[in-house]
Amino acid sequence: MAAAPTTVQLIEKHRPTLDRALDTVRSRAYWSPHPEHPKAYGQEHGSLDAAAGKAAFDALLGGRFELDQPGTVGWGGAERSPYGLDLGVEYPLVDVDVLLPAMREAMPDWAAAGPEARAAVCLEILSRINARTHEFAQAVMHTSGQAYMMAMQAGGPHAQDRGLEAVAYAYAEQTRTPERAHWSKPQGKRDPLNLDKTFTAVPRGIALVIGCNTFPTWNGYPGLFASLATGNPVLVKPHPRAVLPLALTVRIARETLAESGFDPNLVALAAEEEGSRIAATLAVRPEVRIIDYTGSTEFGDWLEANARQAQVYTEKAGVNTVVVDSTDDYRGMLANLAFSLSLYSGQMCTTPQNVLIPRGGISTDGGKKSYDEVVADLAAAVDKLLGDDARAVALLGAIVNPQVGARIDAAGGLGEVALASRQIEHPEFPGATVRTPVIVKLDGGKTDAEAAYLSECFGPVSFAVAVDSTADAVELLRRTVREKGAMTVGAYTTDADTERLVEEACLTECAQLSLNLTGGVYVNQTAAFSDFHGSGGNPAANAALCDGAFVANRFRVVEVRRQA
Amino acid sequence: MAAAPTTVQLIEKHRPTLDRALDTVRSRAYWSPHPEHPKAYGQEHGSLDAAAGKAAFDALLGGRFELDQPGTVGWGGAERSPYGLDLGVEYPLVDVDVLLPAMREAMPDWAAAGPEARAAVCLEILSRINARTHEFAQAVMHTSGQAYMMAMQAGGPHAQDRGLEAVAYAYAEQTRTPERAHWSKPQGKRDPLNLDKTFTAVPRGIALVIGCNTFPTWNGYPGLFASLATGNPVLVKPHPRAVLPLALTVRIARETLAESGFDPNLVALAAEEEGSRIAATLAVRPEVRIIDYTGSTEFGDWLEANARQAQVYTEKAGVNTVVVDSTDDYRGMLANLAFSLSLYSGQMCTTPQNVLIPRGGISTDGGKKSYDEVVADLAAAVDKLLGDDARAVALLGAIVNPQVGARIDAAGGLGEVALASRQIEHPEFPGATVRTPVIVKLDGGKTDAEAAYLSECFGPVSFAVAVDSTADAVELLRRTVREKGAMTVGAYTTDADTERLVEEACLTECAQLSLNLTGGVYVNQTAAFSDFHGSGGNPAANAALCDGAFVANRFRVVEVRRQA
Repeated sequence: MAAAPTTVQLIEKHRPTLDRALDTVRSRAYWSPHPEHPKAYGQEHGSLDAAAGKAAFDALLGGRFELDQPGTVGWGGAERSPYGLDLGVEYPLVDVDVLLPAMREAMPDWAAAGPEARAAVCLEILSRINARTHEFAQAVMHTSGQAYMMAMQAGGPHAQDRGLEAVAYAYAEQTRTPERAHWSKPQGKRDPLNLDKTFTAVPRGIALVIGCNTFPTWNGYPGLFASLATGNPVLVKPHPRAVLPLALTVRIARETLAESGFDPNLVALAAEEEGSRIAATLAVRPEVRIIDYTGSTEFGDWLEANARQAQVYTEKAGVNTVVVDSTDDYRGMLANLAFSLSLYSGQMCTTPQNVLIPRGGISTDGGKKSYDEVVADLAAAVDKLLGDDARAVALLGAIVNPQVGARIDAAGGLGEVALASRQIEHPEFPGATVRTPVIVKLDGGKTDAEAAYLSECFGPVSFAVAVDSTADAVELLRRTVREKGAMTVGAYTTDADTERLVEEACLTECAQLSLNLTGGVYVNQTAAFSDFHGSGGNPAANAALCDGAFVANRFRVVEVRRQA
Repeated sequence: MAAAPTTVQLIEKHRPTLDRALDTVRSRAYWSPHPEHPKAYGQEHGSLDAAAGKAAFDALLGGRFELDQPGTVGWGGAERSPYGLDLGVEYPLVDVDVLLPAMREAMPDWAAAGPEARAAVCLEILSRINARTHEFAQAVMHTSGQAYMMAMQAGGPHAQDRGLEAVAYAYAEQTRTPERAHWSKPQGKRDPLNLDKTFTAVPRGIALVIGCNTFPTWNGYPGLFASLATGNPVLVKPHPRAVLPLALTVRIARETLAESGFDPNLVALAAEEEGSRIAATLAVRPEVRIIDYTGSTEFGDWLEANARQAQVYTEKAGVNTVVVDSTDDYRGMLANLAFSLSLYSGQMCTTPQNVLIPRGGISTDGGKKSYDEVVADLAAAVDKLLGDDARAVALLGAIVNPQVGARIDAAGGLGEVALASRQIEHPEFPGATVRTPVIVKLDGGKTDAEAAYLSECFGPVSFAVAVDSTADAVELLRRTVREKGAMTVGAYTTDADTERLVEEACLTECAQLSLNLTGGVYVNQTAAFSDFHGSGGNPAANAALCDGAFVANRFRVVEVRRQA
């Protein structure tokens, strides 16, 4: 259990941050050690400002991304930025029969280091990632299609927050049982029974992180850091179109581990050429004992059914609903919803899809508004928000893949188009596909409409669903969450009874609810240390980011007891 | 969230016990609020002494066990005591299509009561069970075959301890996130973003407890109370030959719930006639979202593979090993091992099966002992321990079913018999089958021997396996745990290097280790609040009793956030 000198230094350096994170997950107040403001970077030694981050990113393009990990048998990679440029980066392709044994060999020392040393090394990795936030921003932007500011924030500090949150939970869980205990059981007049006991958190085995295209770091870091902090080696299998942000992460992790006296093979990359299905192969390897996955319901369900040797944490697809009953801030509601529908072209797992509006209209601070008026006003709010092309592209980003574009084009066939999608020319990247959201009116009572609004239509496609009443909306909300899952639910109401009904629906169907958001917080955004991302209790995800259940089964506790 | 007055009183009554349990699972020191001494009962108002417990048990025999639960469609039951008497108790047979909806209806109020009220009601149930410990002792004795003292202790206070431990973990987990939080995010010169948030632990759905024959309460209570304390209704499906202890538990739980203002259908019994396979039917019902199971590996594996809609916690079979390398208390070691092999006729999931001894012998405080000497001395120690028939039956109890008897009879065919099993006449119950342990010598290097010692041989059958060296023993230990699983590992050594090797093996293979036990603590016994039962990390069980992982996924947290 002896820690290398550098580990002691890392504990000293990062313990205050760890303690603050531990406090905050208990208080759920606002906190982050990772600045959001782009100008916060480049001020300190080693931290890159925007220009330096861009230069670092540019230097990676068109080259081989060396990782010096065992089992490299070739090079591959075909990332093309949604902004139109080929990244041209080649990553090592691996022989898993060489890499996995090397990763297992790295385990014992990491396991023996203990929870505090592991947490400190994880925080050092995160702090080095944080210093290169602008480099990551470029990498996230040019793989996910997020606009730069969003890529910088969601792909940078917000992702780092989620990673730190996972480390804090993992540390708390592992230290819940003391390292040592003395047990003395009275025996009446005889001597007590005495035992000395030790309790050790032991890792499960190799953890596999299967990354997604849209949020490679934000969705990848919780599982990666939860597994690493609990002593497991982590093999990162990025989405073939979003390798670079996770390759950078793996490189920084390997450097940090090696400098801290640990085997760098505790973190490795399993890049693939598109279509190689390496994830399915890796997922059922006996060495793989933990899997974190973000992606399609189909593959998530496959993992849950087939990777039986592993603990499987999945975030899959869902259908997010907003119930519109009434509001005392009609403009605020419309602006807030317009932003939520537009941000990153609705390509978030948390973007609302179905906006349920009573066909008899709603009451607002501006008087009664009919269903048609509400839909028209929402369409106008989106139009206004995205009226200026430069501002629009900074909000929308680029369409991540052609399937999203196809869904936008097909949406018009599903119902009456309340807001048509526009194509916008990106001023800087002419190759980018930038599309504004489409809003389609659907009648909640019609069977053909139901087929549309009860399927996930990933991308900037929303349905303004006319329902008979708010009670009807709540019933549809329940059904949607139960059958299709939901990462988020929103609701607008000034009526206490309605609020209670919606709240009850979300409590029983297990969905996270945002009520009456009209300002600068949006239903599709969650903050680490305070908000849960997903509930783990409906079909959209079997885990939440981040709670005790997310970390508690990534390790086990072994007790050794000795007669004292 | 308003608590009924009685709930407030229960919180007041039980909060100190809950707090002490919460403290103790953190310190892992010795503690129990449930006295072990038989004479501790009957002193207080409402608590039954041994005679009153016997009278209460006798009054149940030959009658219908009324539970007044919905969906009763008939009566059945054919329990025959391993001590030779037919219990003649009939239990309600249920129409699950009536019972399950009634249980679901009971959920919302229980969910709304909150973690503290639920914990208090659970502690009240346990305290009423505790008062009737002697009645439970009779019920456990005459279903499991345990001797009276063991049935009273393991089936009484020790089981109640494990239930309380689960309640404490459940309470801690649910209250880890505050009920309310205010979140205020600075926005530079602009006003901060403010949100008010509530966090509510919501139950998953109906929990199914599938009981076992040998420890109906001890193995049943952790899952039952963990699920109930986290808000889930619990359907108890006892082993058809060990219904009474769990039926009594269900009745007391239903009475307590009703008196506390809750729906008694939060806890119900699903008795069956032997061979009806109701467990497999219930396990895949969509309403069933949690399953706790103790029993065969075959059905446990089936549950894990097929009950995909549920969180499944299983304790299955394993092969427990003791490594004998050296000792400075040879007599103590032999006496300790002899007791472990004899207690409840070795019918514990924690009883050692394989005793690995170097064929070159071991060093002891009595000088070098050859393999043959160690085996002969162990046989003699068992013989001495069980030399007096009255003392022997009080330790051995009765053989739980004919299959165990058949395995004892077949053991002689597996190798040289070092100690033959004797049949003992029970002085009080002539119908009881009482058998002393058999010890068989096996050569660890022989393939046909391997088939024997690498299979679980449940009951009082032990193998003294000759191995080439202690290193060989540790290697076999590793392989046994990895391939077959283990609930316990024991080791005797005076050598620090050997101790380290065994410890490393247990850490990497994830098995709970007892070192050099020579006194009044035995490898097959664990104490709630301090020892983990199983590790959840080897094939013998996918969960440990009791840790964070055992409770954290029985509920989810739903957040509601509102603009402040």
